[in-house]
Amino acid sequence: MRLATIRTAAGTRAVRVDETTATETGEADLRALLARPDWRAHAEAAAGPSHAVAGLDYAPLVPSPEKIICVGLNYRDHVLEMGNELPAYPTVFAKYAPALIGAYDEIELPTVSEQVDYEAELTIVIGQPVRHADDAAAEAAIAGYTVLNDVSVRDYQNRTKQFLQGKTFEHSTPLGPVLVTPDELAGDGASNGGWAISCTLDGEVMQSSTTDQLVFGAVELVKYLSVIITLNPGDVIATGTPGGVGHARKPPRYLTDGAEIVVAVEGIGECRNVCRSAK
Amino acid sequence: MRLATIRTAAGTRAVRVDETTATETGEADLRALLARPDWRAHAEAAAGPSHAVAGLDYAPLVPSPEKIICVGLNYRDHVLEMGNELPAYPTVFAKYAPALIGAYDEIELPTVSEQVDYEAELTIVIGQPVRHADDAAAEAAIAGYTVLNDVSVRDYQNRTKQFLQGKTFEHSTPLGPVLVTPDELAGDGASNGGWAISCTLDGEVMQSSTTDQLVFGAVELVKYLSVIITLNPGDVIATGTPGGVGHARKPPRYLTDGAEIVVAVEGIGECRNVCRSAK
Repeated sequence: MRLATIRTAAGTRAVRVDETTATETGEADLRALLARPDWRAHAEAAAGPSHAVAGLDYAPLVPSPEKIICVGLNYRDHVLEMGNELPAYPTVFAKYAPALIGAYDEIELPTVSEQVDYEAELTIVIGQPVRHADDAAAEAAIAGYTVLNDVSVRDYQNRTKQFLQGKTFEHSTPLGPVLVTPDELAGDGASNGGWAISCTLDGEVMQSSTTDQLVFGAVELVKYLSVIITLNPGDVIATGTPGGVGHARKPPRYLTDGAEIVVAVEGIGECRNVCRSAK
Repeated sequence: MRLATIRTAAGTRAVRVDETTATETGEADLRALLARPDWRAHAEAAAGPSHAVAGLDYAPLVPSPEKIICVGLNYRDHVLEMGNELPAYPTVFAKYAPALIGAYDEIELPTVSEQVDYEAELTIVIGQPVRHADDAAAEAAIAGYTVLNDVSVRDYQNRTKQFLQGKTFEHSTPLGPVLVTPDELAGDGASNGGWAISCTLDGEVMQSSTTDQLVFGAVELVKYLSVIITLNPGDVIATGTPGGVGHARKPPRYLTDGAEIVVAVEGIGECRNVCRSAK
């Protein structure tokens, strides 16, 4: 099953996305839908107003998550190619909800920086509350997967040792377009080659890897984070990005006004966004 | 004016706190109250059900802020005594809402750590949306001040370079008990000695400073952060802690089961919490 949050004339709506038609489930957004313990059955049975998939206006997949958790330094090939040792613990940092945009919205380039970068990320969405999870509970808590571009304002990110200020600029971070439940996906993303993940800037491939390179996979991340805090329905966990980011290139390559940036994960979908300088 | 969020048999309620009586404003919590553009006049005129102040059960001052923004390395005396240079930019990191507890609730000590520490902090609460603020807009956006104990799980905080995972354990962070509007306070906290800020552990003073030692004061922080993202009503900005934290003591001094920790800011209030090991 594929689920999304769309914008309609009456406000945002959670929808089940089938081949050509999206059907409203009755909730205002995906977080509200996932807050229902019966969300799977409810969404499968939904028969509300419907919309042609071709014309959907996607909101951020979860417009206001309680938590946006981002993981850094989590692709094995990238860590090793940089000459670093594999980390013992996940590096985690946050974004705030107003950073999010829809999967096809414009990325707002702040006027205060010329070092805005991209990061393609496989992203987990939580579907039931979970704390102190074992493997089975962690797996059961994952509603599904989506795609996030962890757009990063590198000079702000590096002003201090804490990444947050460079990671949470307003209207910077595409999330979506859809959540795909695990039963729709080939394999588990961690073995047998995983899923292809890529980032393309104005048609040129910038990042290309596979999710089996994740040091900490989805189930491990949910377990680890649930020791710290309860993960709740609609929480978003971006699992980190592979090598090839613009800031590490020689010369560096940043996002500029009018550029089109596409981040994609195999079987899940892509965020395709034009960058636009803030007025 | 003093405002709070209290727990009642019918759920949380925003209240105006007068000398002996707290009066409900009609909103479920302080964030909902501050979301009203007329919140000052509305709260001043409130005449809903009332409660004796002596018996109030305080919820986290803002139970579910859109943003909890924490500032580090921000007390001049502490930075200099550690032999460091004053920072050029604020260090900022996040907490998630489920970390918050009421001003007199028990602090939950996680079973996975024996390095839980305290940090007394003057804390800003935002009262109107603000982006790209100048001095006047930043000052106008500050609804008032409160107190936060930025309880920190030092081993988790130091597992990686990003503080977040040690800063956001569930039920760790007292916030409150009340918001005090600036007109009720003597001075602006930044000049003429500022306001006294302290932390006391089982009756022993651990931290003692004044808020005029802040490198980045309240107005400066609101201006800086509003370049990055819109600050919204109910957003919480904890401004950092002075010297004297337990982790830097020789030998270190941590929070243990049954300990009572009090963090206070002059003219605003105090959080007084007993620590309790998670079962």
